[in-house]
Amino acid sequence: MGKVTTSVTTMSLDGYIAGPDESGFDLLFQWYGNGDVEIPSASPDVPPFHVSAASAALLRREWGNAGALVVGRYLYDLTHAWGGRHPMDVPTVVLTHRRPADRPEDDADFVFVTDGIEAAVARAKALAGEKDVVVNGGQMARQCLEAGLLDEVGIALVPVVLGGGKRLFDGLGGGPVRFDGPVAVVEGTGVTHLRYRVRR
Amino acid sequence: MGKVTTSVTTMSLDGYIAGPDESGFDLLFQWYGNGDVEIPSASPDVPPFHVSAASAALLRREWGNAGALVVGRYLYDLTHAWGGRHPMDVPTVVLTHRRPADRPEDDADFVFVTDGIEAAVARAKALAGEKDVVVNGGQMARQCLEAGLLDEVGIALVPVVLGGGKRLFDGLGGGPVRFDGPVAVVEGTGVTHLRYRVRR
Repeated sequence: MGKVTTSVTTMSLDGYIAGPDESGFDLLFQWYGNGDVEIPSASPDVPPFHVSAASAALLRREWGNAGALVVGRYLYDLTHAWGGRHPMDVPTVVLTHRRPADRPEDDADFVFVTDGIEAAVARAKALAGEKDVVVNGGQMARQCLEAGLLDEVGIALVPVVLGGGKRLFDGLGGGPVRFDGPVAVVEGTGVTHLRYRVRR
Repeated sequence: MGKVTTSVTTMSLDGYIAGPDESGFDLLFQWYGNGDVEIPSASPDVPPFHVSAASAALLRREWGNAGALVVGRYLYDLTHAWGGRHPMDVPTVVLTHRRPADRPEDDADFVFVTDGIEAAVARAKALAGEKDVVVNGGQMARQCLEAGLLDEVGIALVPVVLGGGKRLFDGLGGGPVRFDGPVAVVEGTGVTHLRYRVRR
């Protein structure tokens, strides 16, 4: 059975995964373009990534372990469904209040779940089989953590302070959550990859 | 000439240096007590620290490089002036709107500056000589960063998510600030020490 993880969540030094009004992505995601090792993207809207050798090895491992994604409707709409397929090239479960009118049917690319995070993760686990379920987006990560569904957190810490925006686990309820680790530290170029396990 | 740095600022995975209503310090500062290497404290109110060998080596280096501290009045009052002397055993410049009534005179322990962060850092630099000026507290760090006075940021990243509280550089104005590094990564027990340089 695979794990449920945020995989590679890019975060600023002051804990933001997006700047004010969806700004700062150029700074946050700079490490996806500051190297010479190409990582292909399955999305027609997202060009291939060019990262450092260390980040490339990590991305190949993380993406290779991923069997399905769980994302929120917000990210699905913001990215326009990644043009039809997520860059990681895995089936994507979208947690939403109502199915998008332009995608009435589930297919190999997107599955829509309307009855909560537990159902979304369960659906993703079924799709992932032995592989990992990757949770994408701060609110999905928060909901998984609050529901006790999250096993690991992968953070790509980048050397920028944004001063505001959206935070990982923003609005977390139920008090502090402790982690073990980092169980892995990988130094990329302009990014430090950290992995933690949720303490049960 | 020494540098101006936050030295060793303990921060949660979600970017908080204090939990809601000054909570979470037990979780944030756990690494100060989870090892068997004793680090003495110059404060009569703060017992010696017991940290891992890796954190001890880092603290000895950081504290050894420190020539003076800059703190805000908030932290000075919150800690009751550390009982008379800061644990790091260096003169402490307190930025305040008005001098505390119980300390009319500057002395070897505390110097009070009422005319802004530049003056506070200048005073600390004079006291530090060739050594570093250590900036303590999120708002002092923010003011130094905004004023272009900060050279480096030292973060002790601990594996806990607090979900709310006070942030490092909270309320930063003037848009994103980029850093170089990490220029140093030290893996302690229950803490990852990261050091970054402010990009000029």
